[in-house]
Amino acid sequence: MARKKTNRPRPRNAEATRERLLAAATEEFSEHGFAGARIDRIAQRAGTNKRMIYAYFGDKDQLLEAVMERRIAQLSKALRFTGEDLTGAAAARFDYMFANPQVRRLAAWRTFERAEPTQAERDSYRVGVAALAAAQRAGKVNATIPAVDLFAMVLSLTESWLSAPPALQAVSRDPLGATRLAQHRKALVEAVRRITEPR
Amino acid sequence: MARKKTNRPRPRNAEATRERLLAAATEEFSEHGFAGARIDRIAQRAGTNKRMIYAYFGDKDQLLEAVMERRIAQLSKALRFTGEDLTGAAAARFDYMFANPQVRRLAAWRTFERAEPTQAERDSYRVGVAALAAAQRAGKVNATIPAVDLFAMVLSLTESWLSAPPALQAVSRDPLGATRLAQHRKALVEAVRRITEPR
Repeated sequence: MARKKTNRPRPRNAEATRERLLAAATEEFSEHGFAGARIDRIAQRAGTNKRMIYAYFGDKDQLLEAVMERRIAQLSKALRFTGEDLTGAAAARFDYMFANPQVRRLAAWRTFERAEPTQAERDSYRVGVAALAAAQRAGKVNATIPAVDLFAMVLSLTESWLSAPPALQAVSRDPLGATRLAQHRKALVEAVRRITEPR
Repeated sequence: MARKKTNRPRPRNAEATRERLLAAATEEFSEHGFAGARIDRIAQRAGTNKRMIYAYFGDKDQLLEAVMERRIAQLSKALRFTGEDLTGAAAARFDYMFANPQVRRLAAWRTFERAEPTQAERDSYRVGVAALAAAQRAGKVNATIPAVDLFAMVLSLTESWLSAPPALQAVSRDPLGATRLAQHRKALVEAVRRITEPR
């Protein structure tokens, strides 16, 4: 899908080009996954050419690395996960994922393709699990469940409705309506509280 | 991928052909999703021709309906979900999903493609949520979380490790090894107990 052409003049400086390429690559990877993404389509979306991508990022792997690094930086900024306030972090992730379906789809592709994780992804999860383990050692979080499992579970709970099978969502009349989402958000907080509170 | 030819004679009766077609279609849908699946490849996998598929099942939609119906019948038989023993049901689903990566991938495609649910899928979830709601009314399951949310959460927890982002799995040295899986299974049971026990 080519981006609609406009008559607005494009900023010429390098930083703006880099941003435009990152945004175009994020769109492309989120629509087609890593294997299906095409460098020439990314260049077209960004209104530039392939040479610029190679010059700015290197190969397709390096472009994905840059996209994931950026995405994770944005997510971290939005969530500020400390390993302690897990109900707050879960609710914030739920809100973020609802507001950013493109990020949800990009994440789904990463799991679906069983692709080699980028360094930014590895670091992000390692740091998150370590923070959770520290909170457990400090007695602030339930320690009967190992940190890596608890982390995976809370992560998965934040998407249990948004990424539910369409047939399960169809049990509700308006699965992504405001009322349903508010009810699910409340349920999410309650569930995370139950599995994480020390007792 | 064409199935390897063998010299074994194929059973000639209609039931065996139907079974072979269903197995071939399950493989094809699980590898390529619904949109990407090709009827001629399914016929080839089953060692027959397209006409047989149309004769036995009808169009591609109807073939998918038959595949999902069969898959759900097998899963129901393996799990026997009554809405009461949720920790047992979650552990059984975890074991089933680990043992059947093809089923996991088929389920992932259903969510990923946001495809129109088949009737068998709709019925299956409606029945499951209703059973859970009944167990809540009977005071056997925590009723502070609505049945549809609790169902989505337990479902999602059963796959929180198997379908975790590859970068999160990589926090463990041997993410699908026996020790890791046993530890996660125990954690899963504890988490499901915590969110479902009435208190």
